[in-house]
This record gives sequence, structure tokens and C-alpha cells, in this order.
Amino acid sequence: MTETTLRAAYAGARAIVAGGLGFIGSNLARRLGTLGADVLVVDALLPDLGGNRHNLDGAQGRIAVEIADLRTADIAPFVAGRQYLFNLAAQTSHQGSMDAPLDDLDLNCRVALRLLEACRKASPTVAVVFASTRQVYGRPNYLPVDERHPVAPVDVNGVHKLAAEAYHTLYRKVYGVKSSVLRLTNTYGPRMRIKDARQTFLGVWLRAVLEGRRFEVWEGEQLRDLTYVDDAVDALLLAGAAPKAEGGVFNIGGGRRVALKHLAKTLVAVHGGGDYSIEPFPATRKRIDIGDYHADDRLFRRITGWKPRVALKDGLARTLDYYRGNLAPYL
Amino acid sequence: MTETTLRAAYAGARAIVAGGLGFIGSNLARRLGTLGADVLVVDALLPDLGGNRHNLDGAQGRIAVEIADLRTADIAPFVAGRQYLFNLAAQTSHQGSMDAPLDDLDLNCRVALRLLEACRKASPTVAVVFASTRQVYGRPNYLPVDERHPVAPVDVNGVHKLAAEAYHTLYRKVYGVKSSVLRLTNTYGPRMRIKDARQTFLGVWLRAVLEGRRFEVWEGEQLRDLTYVDDAVDALLLAGAAPKAEGGVFNIGGGRRVALKHLAKTLVAVHGGGDYSIEPFPATRKRIDIGDYHADDRLFRRITGWKPRVALKDGLARTLDYYRGNLAPYL
Repeated sequence: MTETTLRAAYAGARAIVAGGLGFIGSNLARRLGTLGADVLVVDALLPDLGGNRHNLDGAQGRIAVEIADLRTADIAPFVAGRQYLFNLAAQTSHQGSMDAPLDDLDLNCRVALRLLEACRKASPTVAVVFASTRQVYGRPNYLPVDERHPVAPVDVNGVHKLAAEAYHTLYRKVYGVKSSVLRLTNTYGPRMRIKDARQTFLGVWLRAVLEGRRFEVWEGEQLRDLTYVDDAVDALLLAGAAPKAEGGVFNIGGGRRVALKHLAKTLVAVHGGGDYSIEPFPATRKRIDIGDYHADDRLFRRITGWKPRVALKDGLARTLDYYRGNLAPYL
Repeated sequence: MTETTLRAAYAGARAIVAGGLGFIGSNLARRLGTLGADVLVVDALLPDLGGNRHNLDGAQGRIAVEIADLRTADIAPFVAGRQYLFNLAAQTSHQGSMDAPLDDLDLNCRVALRLLEACRKASPTVAVVFASTRQVYGRPNYLPVDERHPVAPVDVNGVHKLAAEAYHTLYRKVYGVKSSVLRLTNTYGPRMRIKDARQTFLGVWLRAVLEGRRFEVWEGEQLRDLTYVDDAVDALLLAGAAPKAEGGVFNIGGGRRVALKHLAKTLVAVHGGGDYSIEPFPATRKRIDIGDYHADDRLFRRITGWKPRVALKDGLARTLDYYRGNLAPYL
């Protein structure tokens, strides 16, 4: 069902993926390629972010790559004649946004706004899909969190993602630019940044088990739902293709919720070895921690038919397999 | 009561007013001067905004002026050793924010964030008061609008003001920077920009009656509450001084609500002449119009004892009087 829908929408279509050398962006670009789309990837390859040239190695289909910084580059030529724009260009580190809030402003707000301005002027019929974050909710008042949950960001990244969401809603209402916003939760899988924790703590854990080092689990009781990247990619593609999803803001979750200490245990079991310690939360992180999170994503499932297909153990196994054969480019 | 409170808080205090050559900023700086504060005004005097050197003519007390652009200037020396920071530096035109959204991003978000970063690092005990706008609510669901009304900005300016509000809430929670946010409605009075509509439609109306030209009232049925600038200045000063108001987000209204066509009639009556026509709303403005607005500001009144003291007719009379003697510098 999903496959048929996606092939109908994307075979022969012209799509652009901003941040397409990054983790989710490259997985999306690769999938678009196999669906038969004509894909333009634009990425700045900024050292602190997720872009990695290796992420498109061996990709199939027609994928062109432009190295350009969307904070300043002329965007009109990139979006002209495109039917789909997926905006995965982002600074995603919560602590990073506190350490360098003005960089976060440019990377998240300025880029999103410049992309929408370019669409409005050069390509008003493009369907825009924006990858947002569950971080906009802050510390949940109730679980699972649905889209009516109040927003109250606890870090600068959350403030900026919320503003970028609002641009999309606004440009749809005022200018008729088609847009949808997906609030992603922790997404993991091949091609994520694992050299540090800038793309979820799980990157650090993965690297540690692969290198035979011990990793730290902070507290460990926090609940999360994780989305395997292929499932997140399906959601992004369905959002772009679904007319009913235009202008909507949707949660994307994953499977069952899991406590971080259980996630650590599962990771070690799937890898067949590894060690970790449970540590208290560092104070600088604790003050921007959101506690437990679990998405209610029934709205998006109902509208698009999406559902996650990769269980946690399988997802972790595929991820570890990928890095066993490709570790060096990610260190 | 207000006067005693304010003198106790501000006599001898060191305050900075960002945007202090602008409309509300200059009225605030002048008042701080007469209260005995040591005032530093910082303003970029950008041509499209409200700054005007004439606005501090004849001001009393110790008021120093720095011409500096807070988007780029080194802010640390300005905030070091200050007890109060009033942030009135802003781009306030709704249509302007749609025409130049990236400028609005820098003028509203970047400046607010840079000021807070500087406070956090150089002056962590400063009390910050941020002038926000009722525009964050978008089109009201009910009247009068209290602070629990959902936010749903209908223009880029509203999105950015909301993000800037969130910075203040965040910096208080994470870093302990004292802050309060006032959501102002249409504020009017001496020293406002009247050469165009960038600071409310009322500027255009005032100029027209003073120059004996006819002005246009768009639709005319919309309800607004207007705040005379001296009342807004009292609110800003009380917010800075009131310990209970720390970290709060408050509506500031004015007196009775008034339909714009009635406001036009009152303006002409107070001036003793003038003419206007009722016109349909221009399409580009209609799509970002918020309809009727009337603030419920009881929360702020209860906490600080504030109340507006200048009735609409008196406020309009004082405003017209001011410009009769000072028209040239505002054209």
C-alpha cells in the first residue's frame, strides 16, 4: 500500500532534499532515488552537523549533489521546477542550541524561512515537508503526547523549531504554499552521526559498543519511543504525497516506548557484547531535559496509512551491521 | 502609589533602554530620567524603524546615547553593571514583516537573543523587560483576550515575537535571568512614527489630520483597545520593579474598546477638523488582519497595581498638541 502510493507520487518527480547528506536526509534521498525520482541534494557539510559525503555512497537513481550553505546561498535555482521540497537541514543538538543559540537561530529559522521565501517566489506549487521535533512540547504533561498537547520548549532548539513550524503554517495560509510538519522523536539507523551526541545519545552508545568501550546511561528511567530511519523516511514521503496532510502538524512516533536502561540492555544484547554504567544526569543537561516522552501519532496514521514497520531489535541490528562495514567515515 | 513604587525602584538605578530613540523607548527613557535613573539608550536609528534623534530633545536627567546596531554590536559593555534592561528595539510593522521576513528575524529574534546572551554572561542579575505584542494571539477566538488564549500568529512578526518571548521564559528557567514580557496592544502618543503606517495605522491618520488631508479607514468595524504611551511606560516600569512579575507574560490593554470608525470620528473631533473615508480592506493586508482585539489585562493589574490613567480623548489631544509643535522632525 505505502509502496504503491509512494511510487505513484515520486516516480519521475523532481524533488529537493535540503540537508540531504545528513542522517535522515540521505536515507530519504536514497529512497527517492530508488522510487525513480529526480533528486537534488543540497547540503552545507558543516562540521558540527550531520552531513557526511559517505552517506550517498553507492546510491541509485538520479541524485545530484550541491554543496551550498542555505543560510546565504541563492536558493531560487534549487527550488525552481521542483514538486517536492523536504527540509532536513537543521541543527538538532539540544545542548548545542544552548551553547550557540545564534547559530541555532540561523540554521533552523533562517534556513527554513529562506526556503519558504524561495518557494513562494520561484516555485509556489511545491509541496514542502518540514522535519520538526517532539522537543517543541517541552516536558510532557501527559503521555502519550498528541498534537493538542501545549507547546513549551525547554531549549533554544525547541523555540526555533516551533518558529519554523509556524512559518510553514503561515505560508500555507497566506500564500497557499503546501506544507506539512512532522514532529519526529528520536530517530536512529544507518548514516546517523555517531562521533558524538549531536544526533541523540544513541550515536555515542552505538560507537562505544562498536569500539568495545563502555558507555554511560544517564539515569536510565526516562521513557522514549524510537523511530527507525526507514520508517521516518516513509512518513516524510507520505506527508509530501498526501493531499489531506497539507498544512498539518503531525507527531511521528515509533513502536513501543522503552526506558533508556532497557534500550541499553537491548543494544548490548543485539550486538552480542558491550558494557555500560548508569550515571546521574549531568546538571547542564538536566535543566533542559524533557523527562519521559511517548508520541501519540494516530492522527498521521489515520490520514496517511503510515505505520512503523521496523521493530527496535531489528532496527538496532541493521544499524550495527551498517557501521561494522562502514565505521571509519563516521569517526 | 505607582509613583512611589517607581521612584523607590529607579531613583539612582542603572538602566538600559534598547531602542531608546524609538517611540515607546524614548518615552520610557525620558521617564526614567525624571525618576532619577542613570539611563543608557542604545539605538541603531534604522530608517524604517521608529528611532528619531529628536525624541530625546530636552530630556532631563542622566541619559547617555549610543548609536549601535544590536544585531552585530558588542553588547557586553552596554549591559555590564545595569540593574534594568528594557528591550524596545524592534521591527513592529506586520506588513513589513511579510515583505522582509528575514530582516524581521534579525531585528526581533537575533537582537532579543543577543541581549539575553549578554545578560546571562555579563550581567546575570539584571531584570529584563521585553515589549511583545498582542499579535502573538492571531485572530482571537474570544474577547477580551487573556493570557491563556491560544497563540497562533498570523504574520511573521507574530512568529518572531513569540519566539523572543520564549527566549525570555527559557533564560529565566535555565539561567535564572529575571524577565517579564508585556504583550502590548496599539500604543499611541507623542514621538510615534507618523510618516507612514509602520507603527500602527494611527500614525498615518495623525499626520493626515495635522496636514489637513483626508485619511482612509479600512472597514472601520474592527475593535481595538489603545494604550496611551505614558500608561504603557508605567506598565514597563512596574514590570521591571515588581518581583512577583518575574518571568511572567502579561497582557497590557488600555481603556474601553473602540471601533476604528469611532476612533476616526473622535480624532477629527479632538483635532477640531479633518476628513476621512471608509474603504474596503486591501487584500494584502486583509490576509494578515486579526479582526477584533480587546485585552484582558487583569492579571497584570492585580500583580502590579497598574491601571491606565489617560482616557482616549485626552491621549489624542496630548498627541496632537505634541505634533503641532514638532511636526517637521517626524515627516
